[in-house]
Amino acid sequence: MSVYQATTSAPVNIACIKYWGKRDTKLILPTNSSLSVTLDQDHLRSTTTSRADPSFKKDRLWLNGVEEEIKDGGRMATCIQEMKRLRKEVEAKDSSLPKLSGYAVHICSRNNFPTAAGLASSASGFAALVSSLAALYALPATPSELSLIARQGSGSACRSLFGGFVAWQMGFKPDGSDSLAIEVAPREHWPDIHALICVVSDDKKGTSSTSGMQRTVETSALLQHRIAHVVPARMEAITAAILARDFDAFARITMQDSNQFHAVALDTDPPIFYMNDVSRAIIALIVEYNRVSVANGGKLKAAYTYDAGPNAVIYAPKENLKEIVELIINYFPQAEPFKDPFGLFGAAGVQGKVVDGFNPAVARPFGVGAVKGLIHTRVGDGPRVLGAGDGLLGADGLPRAD
Amino acid sequence: MSVYQATTSAPVNIACIKYWGKRDTKLILPTNSSLSVTLDQDHLRSTTTSRADPSFKKDRLWLNGVEEEIKDGGRMATCIQEMKRLRKEVEAKDSSLPKLSGYAVHICSRNNFPTAAGLASSASGFAALVSSLAALYALPATPSELSLIARQGSGSACRSLFGGFVAWQMGFKPDGSDSLAIEVAPREHWPDIHALICVVSDDKKGTSSTSGMQRTVETSALLQHRIAHVVPARMEAITAAILARDFDAFARITMQDSNQFHAVALDTDPPIFYMNDVSRAIIALIVEYNRVSVANGGKLKAAYTYDAGPNAVIYAPKENLKEIVELIINYFPQAEPFKDPFGLFGAAGVQGKVVDGFNPAVARPFGVGAVKGLIHTRVGDGPRVLGAGDGLLGADGLPRAD
Repeated sequence: MSVYQATTSAPVNIACIKYWGKRDTKLILPTNSSLSVTLDQDHLRSTTTSRADPSFKKDRLWLNGVEEEIKDGGRMATCIQEMKRLRKEVEAKDSSLPKLSGYAVHICSRNNFPTAAGLASSASGFAALVSSLAALYALPATPSELSLIARQGSGSACRSLFGGFVAWQMGFKPDGSDSLAIEVAPREHWPDIHALICVVSDDKKGTSSTSGMQRTVETSALLQHRIAHVVPARMEAITAAILARDFDAFARITMQDSNQFHAVALDTDPPIFYMNDVSRAIIALIVEYNRVSVANGGKLKAAYTYDAGPNAVIYAPKENLKEIVELIINYFPQAEPFKDPFGLFGAAGVQGKVVDGFNPAVARPFGVGAVKGLIHTRVGDGPRVLGAGDGLLGADGLPRAD
Repeated sequence: MSVYQATTSAPVNIACIKYWGKRDTKLILPTNSSLSVTLDQDHLRSTTTSRADPSFKKDRLWLNGVEEEIKDGGRMATCIQEMKRLRKEVEAKDSSLPKLSGYAVHICSRNNFPTAAGLASSASGFAALVSSLAALYALPATPSELSLIARQGSGSACRSLFGGFVAWQMGFKPDGSDSLAIEVAPREHWPDIHALICVVSDDKKGTSSTSGMQRTVETSALLQHRIAHVVPARMEAITAAILARDFDAFARITMQDSNQFHAVALDTDPPIFYMNDVSRAIIALIVEYNRVSVANGGKLKAAYTYDAGPNAVIYAPKENLKEIVELIINYFPQAEPFKDPFGLFGAAGVQGKVVDGFNPAVARPFGVGAVKGLIHTRVGDGPRVLGAGDGLLGADGLPRAD
């Protein structure tokens, strides 16, 4: 008897031009286009196995070992249903195919990063869900077509269907059929872009991005100006910067857009804060690091960006990562040794220090734990189809024990 | 021999619609109108004595006991020169008057609040300077006319020429002759407005407002929208709220405009942060305090506002101040007993507590010193002319010993 199963992994992406606000909350259609860098799955990924079987009674899903309810009309149900619909179209054209669209599915998903890290897993998670079903169903769909479905799971998930540098075009049609992700450039175009994720502790429960962004749409007087006048120009400018591998322009726009996203969050009633004093201090460090470079006739060497939380993601050309790690560790001592996936440091490990000419007073040193982890990664590829050996479901169709 | 001397005191004001951005940095002409509440001089004031004497060699000024250089072409020199010009006009019309405009002046000024409190003293300071010279010179000028001169010392100083609720009309003329303060309503119109100033510790040196606001003008994509479309409507709406003594509307607009000012500061490149984690926590407390009231069918009971620093000013009707002080002290224990100028609490002092239905998890309790002082005050009157006994200069024309 055949086992119909596929396993894929999908990457995290971190936006440079931020998505904030929906014009349709059910279809997840955004009020502005956005653009992100896909991070390397070698370091951060969601892995998902999907299996279709006539013996399964209903669709079931396990996330990190815990079964999640698939609510009728909910986002997971929508994605699964849309994927079955695409399978059904394929089956209608080729009657020799097994009728998988009629079987229930079991889906098992794992993130290789702890939820406590504060990294949004919905983007990689829904991208892995959609791409594993696409593999299971052997769909001929392109990543952009799949992005239409992943988008309905979690808006930013649509951008995790591609590697490299990815735009989510907001589209204009009411049915959302033109609100999809496209590849601006593959990772191979500019593999030099590295990222340092600074996982920041926070004692405050943040506003969820789903509810927060709609409060901004309803109450911010500044958001409409951002949507109509700022983002379209920035999308063009950062696309040009990526195509030209112009890090200076890329960094400037990235930092400006992170700031503006947090500005419109703050302009919301009641205001929404995602960054805290540690986030602010990291911004001050990067601003000073860039200032020293520019003062010496150089260009911007790093760009910070913050999503709906206090964590910093610092983008930089690979050659600057050593200085950046030293800089961060100088102000934010770490409990654990720095994991050094690119071998920047020798056996002695990292010593905190700052570049010549850096004004150390721009931030005060924090205690151990203020930045509770550092993850060094880089631009990465899109979803990967994995072998049967990587499957997360056992012979019984339930999650395998670890 | 006559002594030509006058002493005045002038109040602090805290804006509800914020001034941020100049269209003329020399004349201090703002990019938008603003509106403030004048605070009571019984609690916070600058006191200034000005004396003109033919024996004085040059204009001199002492601030809190320390002599300040009066730089040619600087803001203090401009104010003194403008006041002498007005005196000269008066002298030209009445030849019997002593020719004070030709004498040098000695000016001695003191604030009754410590500079370390982080309260901007430039508004009350320049208002006291200008009003003491106006008294010395027996000028027939109205407060609005004097505000034209105080504005050139420090923009927001123009609003300290009136008590009560004061608008600074941005004006449109290039020479600034229509950029002046007007009284929206005197304190007697709405004496019920009280204020609690929470003095917040900060370990970060903030960006000066003078340089910060021009960086915003140059780099924020959102500021122009605020100037053109948001502030004019808010000025009208808050004026109507004040005239109607509608605290709910007053509070809503005040909080929205504080948020938006900090939003455009954050939209600046590099971004400017004035609020810190303590400021954010105070906002969360006021938001929750209001939420409970609205959930019980009531209205907004308090409004926070933040200037270019981490201190909170909480406006509220007098009847709510007891609850607000208890709320703040519940999360921010104080080293010193609460100074209770309005006798809200008995001899036992304040016990921290929250109102029924308040969700205590909206903020975590901080340690002693995070809020390093609380000042309870209320809407106040405009500059006062004081008696000779309050003079700050001795017979020798130098500051008197304390």
